Amino acid sequence: MEKQDQLLMKKQNRLLVLELIRAMSPISRIQLSKVTKMSPTSITRIVQELQEEGFVRESLIESTSIGRKPTLLELCPDVLYTVGVELDRRIVRVGLVDFLGELVDFKLFQRKSQESYKETLNNIQEKTVQIINENHIEMKKVIGLGVGLPGSIDYEKGIVKISEQLQWENIPLADDLKELTTHNIIIDNELKMKIIAENTIGQSIDSDNCILLGIGSGIGAAILLHGEVHRGTSNNAGEIGHTVIDPNGVICHCGKVGCLSTYISESAIIADANKVKPINSIEEVYDAYRSKETWACNIMDRVTTYIALAVSNMACLYEPEYIILSGHLIDELPGIGKFIEEKCDRYIWQSIRQNLKIVYSKLGSEGVVRGAAIQAQKVLLDL
Amino acid sequence: MEKQDQLLMKKQNRLLVLELIRAMSPISRIQLSKVTKMSPTSITRIVQELQEEGFVRESLIESTSIGRKPTLLELCPDVLYTVGVELDRRIVRVGLVDFLGELVDFKLFQRKSQESYKETLNNIQEKTVQIINENHIEMKKVIGLGVGLPGSIDYEKGIVKISEQLQWENIPLADDLKELTTHNIIIDNELKMKIIAENTIGQSIDSDNCILLGIGSGIGAAILLHGEVHRGTSNNAGEIGHTVIDPNGVICHCGKVGCLSTYISESAIIADANKVKPINSIEEVYDAYRSKETWACNIMDRVTTYIALAVSNMACLYEPEYIILSGHLIDELPGIGKFIEEKCDRYIWQSIRQNLKIVYSKLGSEGVVRGAAIQAQKVLLDL
Repeated sequence: MEKQDQLLMKKQNRLLVLELIRAMSPISRIQLSKVTKMSPTSITRIVQELQEEGFVRESLIESTSIGRKPTLLELCPDVLYTVGVELDRRIVRVGLVDFLGELVDFKLFQRKSQESYKETLNNIQEKTVQIINENHIEMKKVIGLGVGLPGSIDYEKGIVKISEQLQWENIPLADDLKELTTHNIIIDNELKMKIIAENTIGQSIDSDNCILLGIGSGIGAAILLHGEVHRGTSNNAGEIGHTVIDPNGVICHCGKVGCLSTYISESAIIADANKVKPINSIEEVYDAYRSKETWACNIMDRVTTYIALAVSNMACLYEPEYIILSGHLIDELPGIGKFIEEKCDRYIWQSIRQNLKIVYSKLGSEGVVRGAAIQAQKVLLDL
Repeated sequence: MEKQDQLLMKKQNRLLVLELIRAMSPISRIQLSKVTKMSPTSITRIVQELQEEGFVRESLIESTSIGRKPTLLELCPDVLYTVGVELDRRIVRVGLVDFLGELVDFKLFQRKSQESYKETLNNIQEKTVQIINENHIEMKKVIGLGVGLPGSIDYEKGIVKISEQLQWENIPLADDLKELTTHNIIIDNELKMKIIAENTIGQSIDSDNCILLGIGSGIGAAILLHGEVHRGTSNNAGEIGHTVIDPNGVICHCGKVGCLSTYISESAIIADANKVKPINSIEEVYDAYRSKETWACNIMDRVTTYIALAVSNMACLYEPEYIILSGHLIDELPGIGKFIEEKCDRYIWQSIRQNLKIVYSKLGSEGVVRGAAIQAQKVLLDL
């Protein structure tokens, strides 16, 4: 609990009006006054400030209300931009995102297998300059970069504490990238960025309590409670990949036994597949599954069981409104969703199951980029 | 996000001052001003109001500061009272609690095996009147009753949706009890009440992010985030007893397979014990364990494994500061804690384990009663 003062109060009310214009655009001043229960005078004053600062404009769309038509308000998409970056082991995605959260342009580059930290940073810098210039955006309108990456991230200090996938440990990524690009930098775990996107432009816009499950090279979750990312003591909340689910299970590369990721991660699936035939990539397993090869069906049957167990655990502990399934597995094998849901029906306690919506991310490969850019706007935009 | 207005702001600042006096008592006006960053004038005004209303008084304890001694402030314990009630299958506990959260007096009665809903309510009413009268408390000082009970509770409507243990379904407990006692009634799940007690007078006073695990006739958890009970869509967050942890496990009375409670609940333990010798109560199992009988050690070894798995799941999903272990098992076999912790060390990912404190409830049989009474004060006290 914090002391409430007039300055904070004003700031929160401005933010509330801005967020309502974002969510309900186009909207009239009268509607804003009704929804916020603020006086028409306060609304007029706040809207005028936001217009003068360039965040809000009068819409060309006409109100459909009867009688004198009130002017409708909307956000100015081009008042500012951020760049969203998704950093993964083999690929880096860079996107330019406007004030509405829309992707203006998108680039990607492959990371070479021996690519150094410095080379990666230089490539990000190069693509960032390129994407801004090619779209003729004034540099001063770009307020910063948001970067999402796998691993345990100290988002306040901008440090990558540990990232197994990138093989980075205690790297001051935000500072290094700021020095190189001269932009403000926000970094966070990729799934925490992605859930921001789902909540702003994706599958859970109407909910403040949802969980995103990401299933790809690893498995993890991000949690949104009361509209805020739940972080835990050191931003590791949601790291379910190394939850032990079977104390008699197989040994995990982390040194423990029966971790969830030993059943679901791509490397675990490939290792199992190799007991049947030589398999080099997860795509070959997915192809075999699509062709209904028995061994692949058996492996994927076990995978859906453990995904459903993870969903069940999350549902019982948090009781969220939505669990959003996302990641390479879901993108590649959308049909697998119905098997996961069937098992969830069997595993999840009925009182919780009946209120839970299981949905599928539609943001695909844009999710982390857009989420990172939107999060950078939320953090860096000082109203 | 809500509109911020002056009235709300004043109310929040009053509450902040009151809570600080509670937490840091005895405390001077100057210290309050420093901690809250409010002006000395504002503090003096708020404190004067709180004194006039009887919530706060000047302490007899002298400040140890050098120079002119500032007057220290503290709460008035006897400004108001609430009654806390713990309703369980076989036993009902009733406690009178003052404004400091201290237990003034405590009574309990056994529920007969065929006791009707109405009889139980009458007994609660009788004990409530008795405990108030015997302690010579003016009835108008008792602002309400808080009731904690096992099951799925609609705490806003005051309805017991379902309680397996009490065999109640869709019972308007709060309304019925209000009609009988004429007091305001707050009801909630027992563990949600208990974590309020742990956070106010127990093991997690200094933390706003903690989880309470209750292990007794059943198993469940309550979760506190940012100082508020996390409820989920319909107040079922934390209901981990029927989380499936082994899809090849034994059938549970809920109809599912491999629920956590099939490994840990008292009835499951007793059923297992009966495979060895005739055992009628959990106390006999505990006695055998204390005497190091092999079968009892094996059963309890498995129990600690599954408790550690539950702790591991909760730790990875929430990353809380504390996990508080409580309930009949922990109260009766305090030595078992070290086995649970050893397994937690093995199961929980190191980055999360290192920041997690595993502690043990010391409130014993008073926990739910005091928590329910404190929660009733929080909800009913309209500053």
